[in-house]
Amino acid sequence: MAKPLIVVTNDDGIDAPGIKNLVQVAAQFGELLVVAPSSAQSGMGHAVTVNVPLTFKESEMHAEHLAYACSGTPVDCVKVAKHILGNRKADLLVSGINHGENSATNVLYSGTMGAAIEGAIANIPSVGFSLMDFSFDADFKAAKSVAAKIIDQILQQGLPNGVCLNVNVPKVDPEGLKGIKICRQAKAVWDDKLEKRQNPFGREYHWLTGQFESADTGTDSDLWALHNGYASVVPQKFDLTDYNFLDSLCNWEI
Amino acid sequence: MAKPLIVVTNDDGIDAPGIKNLVQVAAQFGELLVVAPSSAQSGMGHAVTVNVPLTFKESEMHAEHLAYACSGTPVDCVKVAKHILGNRKADLLVSGINHGENSATNVLYSGTMGAAIEGAIANIPSVGFSLMDFSFDADFKAAKSVAAKIIDQILQQGLPNGVCLNVNVPKVDPEGLKGIKICRQAKAVWDDKLEKRQNPFGREYHWLTGQFESADTGTDSDLWALHNGYASVVPQKFDLTDYNFLDSLCNWEI
Repeated sequence: MAKPLIVVTNDDGIDAPGIKNLVQVAAQFGELLVVAPSSAQSGMGHAVTVNVPLTFKESEMHAEHLAYACSGTPVDCVKVAKHILGNRKADLLVSGINHGENSATNVLYSGTMGAAIEGAIANIPSVGFSLMDFSFDADFKAAKSVAAKIIDQILQQGLPNGVCLNVNVPKVDPEGLKGIKICRQAKAVWDDKLEKRQNPFGREYHWLTGQFESADTGTDSDLWALHNGYASVVPQKFDLTDYNFLDSLCNWEI
Repeated sequence: MAKPLIVVTNDDGIDAPGIKNLVQVAAQFGELLVVAPSSAQSGMGHAVTVNVPLTFKESEMHAEHLAYACSGTPVDCVKVAKHILGNRKADLLVSGINHGENSATNVLYSGTMGAAIEGAIANIPSVGFSLMDFSFDADFKAAKSVAAKIIDQILQQGLPNGVCLNVNVPKVDPEGLKGIKICRQAKAVWDDKLEKRQNPFGREYHWLTGQFESADTGTDSDLWALHNGYASVVPQKFDLTDYNFLDSLCNWEI
């Protein structure tokens, strides 16, 4: 049987430690095509590059694996990977391992998950991995063991059309990880702050910052899992229709 | 009673004809705060600016209405609007009118809808409007009449927490519009093409282009409505959890 063909991407850039760790895990399962941004693309969500052209070129970054650095966003990288593969179809797309968590509504801002959702749109079983540690020298051991289990299961069981997985791992040793929990996306949002500064020429600028706030007390959410020592797995879909509200809307006078 | 406070934004930029038309409609219903990108931000989806600072400054672009041009994405504009309002809470957020449709999976790539979804995350009743005509001198008459009806209904009826509306209008005269249809998001995706070019210095670059392809034959989709002369209204939510798949996922061996 042919080895599975696995596309690897991320949003922290092709040289980030997170993607190096993910390449190591994915290489145990199949043949890899790495297409990742040439520079950091955090917070790019599902952005695509339409107003300027894209460039991509082969990279030596991932040793024996075929790898390309792309000028665009994580979603662009998925489109470039499909272009490079031509008639071959990927069996799996893995994105990450992100330096920083992507739980709750962060899934919308996340380039890591933008790529995974784009994979699902392209009908490729897809998963994004994120570690609850922003530091560049984070310890990826626990995240790698979770990623190996999830990749193994996706390759065995597949994923339904239109669904990808959002996997987050807390900052713990592999021995400290309590397990892997299937969750829903927590109802938690950013309380944004715009921090004002002045440039050397006297002009104002702002940094977008803030606190992530949750009023969600459910024990079935991804945030709960992460804060209680579990890795979280949320099945995410790209049909955003709120079917529950469709009927009431039909009563509007329009 | 105080006039409703309405935030207006878009993704085509503060000087686009679409937002000028939307400002005219919204001004009939309340007091406006316009915060829009200083340059075109098409395809930015739910991107936020995290790696560089944001700037924003007052703009004369919208005559008597308080308006700011922002260096960032449509989602950034919503965050800046909240910052400017401080303790005041907007009663409504309107985004658009986009030059080009945002039906089906385009909702994910759309900066227009990124802003509307961010409005919903901030618990502001929010709606994005798009016209199925990319041209800068498009006729916005039909779109304006639809926008007026939808704004009126949202102000009267409200929207549930966590839901915003995605409104698309076909390229027709107001008399040619068959009506407004409540729809689900169509199952249709881009068949991407990367068009290869060479720059004057011999280096390769690519334009991301393609065909929008639909195998969705349902008459309840937004694409069907638009191709049959109706404006479409899809309620969209930002909880991406696929609740139907949660149970099967619990049987995985992880």
